[in-house]
Amino acid sequence: MTTQVIVLNGGSSSGKSGIVRCLQEILPEPWLAAAVDSLVDAMPVSMRESSEGIEFAPDGEVGIGPQFRALEAAWMVGVAAMARAGARIIVDDVFLGGAESQDRWRKALDGLEVLWVGVRCAPEVAAAREIARGDRARGMAAGQAELVHRAVRYDLEVDTTAAEALACARVIAARVG
Amino acid sequence: MTTQVIVLNGGSSSGKSGIVRCLQEILPEPWLAAAVDSLVDAMPVSMRESSEGIEFAPDGEVGIGPQFRALEAAWMVGVAAMARAGARIIVDDVFLGGAESQDRWRKALDGLEVLWVGVRCAPEVAAAREIARGDRARGMAAGQAELVHRAVRYDLEVDTTAAEALACARVIAARVG
Amino acid sequence: MTTQVIVLNGGSSSGKSGIVRCLQEILPEPWLAAAVDSLVDAMPVSMRESSEGIEFAPDGEVGIGPQFRALEAAWMVGVAAMARAGARIIVDDVFLGGAESQDRWRKALDGLEVLWVGVRCAPEVAAAREIARGDRARGMAAGQAELVHRAVRYDLEVDTTAAEALACARVIAARVG
Amino acid sequence: MTTQVIVLNGGSSSGKSGIVRCLQEILPEPWLAAAVDSLVDAMPVSMRESSEGIEFAPDGEVGIGPQFRALEAAWMVGVAAMARAGARIIVDDVFLGGAESQDRWRKALDGLEVLWVGVRCAPEVAAAREIARGDRARGMAAGQAELVHRAVRYDLEVDTTAAEALACARVIAARVG
Repeated sequence: MTTQVIVLNGGSSSGKSGIVRCLQEILPEPWLAAAVDSLVDAMPVSMRESSEGIEFAPDGEVGIGPQFRALEAAWMVGVAAMARAGARIIVDDVFLGGAESQDRWRKALDGLEVLWVGVRCAPEVAAAREIARGDRARGMAAGQAELVHRAVRYDLEVDTTAAEALACARVIAARVG
Repeated sequence: MTTQVIVLNGGSSSGKSGIVRCLQEILPEPWLAAAVDSLVDAMPVSMRESSEGIEFAPDGEVGIGPQFRALEAAWMVGVAAMARAGARIIVDDVFLGGAESQDRWRKALDGLEVLWVGVRCAPEVAAAREIARGDRARGMAAGQAELVHRAVRYDLEVDTTAAEALACARVIAARVG
Repeated sequence: MTTQVIVLNGGSSSGKSGIVRCLQEILPEPWLAAAVDSLVDAMPVSMRESSEGIEFAPDGEVGIGPQFRALEAAWMVGVAAMARAGARIIVDDVFLGGAESQDRWRKALDGLEVLWVGVRCAPEVAAAREIARGDRARGMAAGQAELVHRAVRYDLEVDTTAAEALACARVIAARVG
Repeated sequence: MTTQVIVLNGGSSSGKSGIVRCLQEILPEPWLAAAVDSLVDAMPVSMRESSEGIEFAPDGEVGIGPQFRALEAAWMVGVAAMARAGARIIVDDVFLGGAESQDRWRKALDGLEVLWVGVRCAPEVAAAREIARGDRARGMAAGQAELVHRAVRYDLEVDTTAAEALACARVIAARVG
C-alpha cells in the first residue's frame, strides 16, 4: 500500500521537526509538514493567554482548553482532506492525551494509509536539548517525554537519544510504502 | 449570513499578515490564519530551489512549478475542509495568477460564505517597506503590487498606503457577518 | 565632521529597526547595527526572568536590574570601541531613563562624532503596530512612546506616525557627515 | 586566574550556539554571547550579496571580502573592550582562516584571560544536522568541519558527535576559572 500520511508523535525537544526536514529531504516525492506548532502559530495570540486556549505554565505543563480543542479538531479534518486530495503529509504532533489523541487522529484520517511513528528521547537528554535550544518553557521536554506515548500504538519507533535525526528519518523512510 | 472564510489578497509587503493579526485580535471569535507563506514553509526546502517548485528570482519574480501547484491545490481543499468543520479561517494569499487564482479558491471554497478582501498598497510604498523589512527578495513588492489584483473581484478593498493594519482590520471586521 | 555613530532613540514599535535597515541600504558606506534588542538576545535566558536582569511585565512595563545594567554598561564601552576602531555604528536603543540614558551613552561615546536622532511615533499608532506585529508584550509601545524622549536632546527628530521608515532614513542620511 | 573570555571555535552545525546557551545557563555569573552570526546579522543586507562582504556559495563555501574583514576587525576590538569593562564574554566564531583567525583574536584579546575551546563534530554528523536544521546553505558543515581547526591551539576541545551540548558545556565550565 502507498503511505499517504506519516504521523510522528513525541514530546517537546524529542527532535521531531528535525526528522520531518530530513524526511522531506530524502523521500523521493514532496511531502508537506503539518505541525501542531504551526497550528498554534496560526491561532490568535490571545489563545496562548487563556484557559480556553492553550497555556504554557512556567513548569512546562501545557493546558488545553475548549477553544483550542475546537480549532484542533477542524485542523485534523483539514489535514486529512489535504491527504485525500493527493498531498503526502507528515504530521508532527505531541499526543498530550496519549491514546486518546491517537484516536482523534485515527478518526480524522479514516480510510487513509497511515504510518504511525513514535519518536522517543530519554527525558534527561530531551531536557538537556531544551536548555540548548533556549526557546522553550523549561520542563516541557521532561514532562512530556513518557506521557505522550501512553498506550499509543505505533508501526515503528525511533529514538533520538543516541541517533541523529537523519538516521531516524532513514529508518522511517524505509517503511514508507 | 455568517462569514466562514475571509480571503485577503495582496502583493508582498502590502501588509496582509499585520491585518491578519489585528483581525485575530479584534474579532470576537477565534479565527485561524492560513497563509501561503506558511504553506511554503511547510514544503521541502528543495521545493524552493527547483523550477518544479517555487523559485524566487533575484529580481523578485516568483516562478511556480507543477509540484508547488499540486500541493497548493491540496492545501486549498484542506483549508476549505477546516472551514466546513467549523473553524473560522483567514486566508492570506498572493494571487500571482490574478482572477485565475481567485477561481481556484472559489472552487475550493464552494458553498462557504466568503468575504473577499483586496489589500492594496502603492508600489513605491510597498517597495520601501520591503527594504525596511530586510528579509524579502528585493523587487517582489513592486512587481506584485498591481499584478495580483488583475480582474479579481472583491467584497471590499483596503489600502495600507496611508492606513495602519489595525484601521484596515476594523473596516474588514465591520463587514464580517 | 564625519559622523561616526548614529544613535536612534525611540519607544517599542516606533519603527527604529526598519529605519536602521533603510539607513544601511541607502548610506554609501557599510554601517553596523548595535541594537539593545540584540544585547538582550545575547544575554542568558535567565536574565529575562529575574529582577536582577530585565523583566517584561504583562502590562508592557520594563524593569531593569543591576545585572542588566552592568552588562549594558560594558556593551556601551564596546560599541564605542568599535566606532573608534573605524566601524560606522547605528545604535538602536530605548532610553527608558530618558536624559539619564543619554548621559550614559554620551560618556561612553566621548570624543566620537555622534548624530542624535529621536524616533517618534504617536502612542496610539505605535500601539496599533504592536498588535500588528504580534510578538511584543502588549502595552510597551504606548507606555514608552513619550517616556523615552523626556529631556533628551537631539540633532534631529523623525516621526514615523505618517512617514515610512525609508523616508525617515533619507532625512537622517542627509544629515550624516 | 579568572577567565574573562571563552572563545568557542567550530564549523557550521557543530553545535556551538547550543553550547553557548548551556554555558549561560550553568555558569554562576551572567555571560554575554558574541557570535559571528550576530555580527553578520548586524551588517547591511547588501554585505551578504557582494564579494566585498560575505558570500555564501550554493556549495556551502564562504567567501570573505575586505569590507567584511574591516567590520570584523572593529567588532573584535569592541568585544575585547566589553570584556575589559567587566562583561564576561563567550565568543562563538568560525575560524575560516584557522590559525590566522586565532591570531586576530589573540591580538584583540591581548591581556585578557582567555579560555580557547575547540568544538569538533564529525563532518558527516555535522552535515546530517545541517539537513535537520534546514536553514543553512548545504555543504557548509562538511566543508568547515576540519578546516576551521587547522593549526589552532586550544586549552580544551569538546566533541559534539556523540555528546550533548549540555555535557560539553559542563566540561568547559569546569575549566572556567
